[in-house]
Amino acid sequence: VVLLMSFEDWLPDSGLARETREYVAGQEEPFLFNHSVRSYLFATVSARARQLAPAVDYDDELLFVSCLMHDIGLAGGHRGNQRFEVDGADIAVEFLSARGLDADRADIVWQAIALHTSPGIAERRPLEVALTRAGIALDFGAGAETIDDALATEVHRALPRLDMARRLTDAIICQAQNNPTKAPPYSTPGELVRERSQPPHITRLEQLANHGRWGS
Amino acid sequence: VVLLMSFEDWLPDSGLARETREYVAGQEEPFLFNHSVRSYLFATVSARARQLAPAVDYDDELLFVSCLMHDIGLAGGHRGNQRFEVDGADIAVEFLSARGLDADRADIVWQAIALHTSPGIAERRPLEVALTRAGIALDFGAGAETIDDALATEVHRALPRLDMARRLTDAIICQAQNNPTKAPPYSTPGELVRERSQPPHITRLEQLANHGRWGS
Repeated sequence: VVLLMSFEDWLPDSGLARETREYVAGQEEPFLFNHSVRSYLFATVSARARQLAPAVDYDDELLFVSCLMHDIGLAGGHRGNQRFEVDGADIAVEFLSARGLDADRADIVWQAIALHTSPGIAERRPLEVALTRAGIALDFGAGAETIDDALATEVHRALPRLDMARRLTDAIICQAQNNPTKAPPYSTPGELVRERSQPPHITRLEQLANHGRWGS
Repeated sequence: VVLLMSFEDWLPDSGLARETREYVAGQEEPFLFNHSVRSYLFATVSARARQLAPAVDYDDELLFVSCLMHDIGLAGGHRGNQRFEVDGADIAVEFLSARGLDADRADIVWQAIALHTSPGIAERRPLEVALTRAGIALDFGAGAETIDDALATEVHRALPRLDMARRLTDAIICQAQNNPTKAPPYSTPGELVRERSQPPHITRLEQLANHGRWGS
């Protein structure tokens, strides 16, 4: 059993990781920031379960910044005409490149963020991309029975959920209502809009969370 | 105005291109093979419209094999547990790597095929990936008004449509009925299954084609 003294002890402490964390904390509401940090913590649990080691098998700094920034396209001040995953990927690459991240590593972050809602595809891209999606899925409750009880309690004490699944879905739909080009047919944002607009007026994503171990 | 003597004069003539064409012609029914070749021809039209030149701006051989093999995951003999785009991407990379394609170029083909149903994402990957999707979209009628009349006539004379949009949708849904893991929620295959199962029992993809310049 792994017990956290503080969730902060688990986070990478490079300058880029710290700057990213401060930036995202300043841009995102707590429900979104907490979801992003939890997704990273759960991604590292998923990595260990697959016997993957940081530095050896995957780049922990890339995994961290990918998870931290995966929903930055939903943060208040950001506007764009692309689906939020792609606008967010662009925001992340701009932020990270300005702080020295090289193009090859930046492209992995781009893919991790742009593909985090693409089932069956993210899983087949570089490990940091696959683990980002795995961590996010765990935070929505998919496979959450694999998470140790004490860890789960500690993580949610430090980073409360704050009705994340509903509010995140609201944010995606709100963007699409203001700008339909952000929710094209056959995309996850487009589907969330459709699901909310038709009976039973709740998305499969929210149902997954509501019926899962953590709730919304 | 560009008139084709034969559509074959327009296709790349490298050994790999010829082998790919022969392989796909042997694997796919004519409705699917013709769609794949038309997608390549329309992709090159899209490239020219964007003032992109083969060899200079994009790799024409990669674009050709990507378009030719983009639906190979729907061909009769192929079975897999992933969505057809990803199973197809794997089949293509296996085929092409065995014939000497290096890993970096093979990964571009993988992305072109795996992402061809991902709106707003394929457009932001390497040019061969974006052009593959653009060519396919043109063959479904999206933006088809930009295609020259004489060219359109010649292409469809050489490569008739054979009710492609309906039969391609049928093939995706048939796979999913046999194996639901091939059509996860929030994926294009999953959406096509849902659309056919609910009123008005026709997919947006087929409606796009039916109402477009070419019909199904």
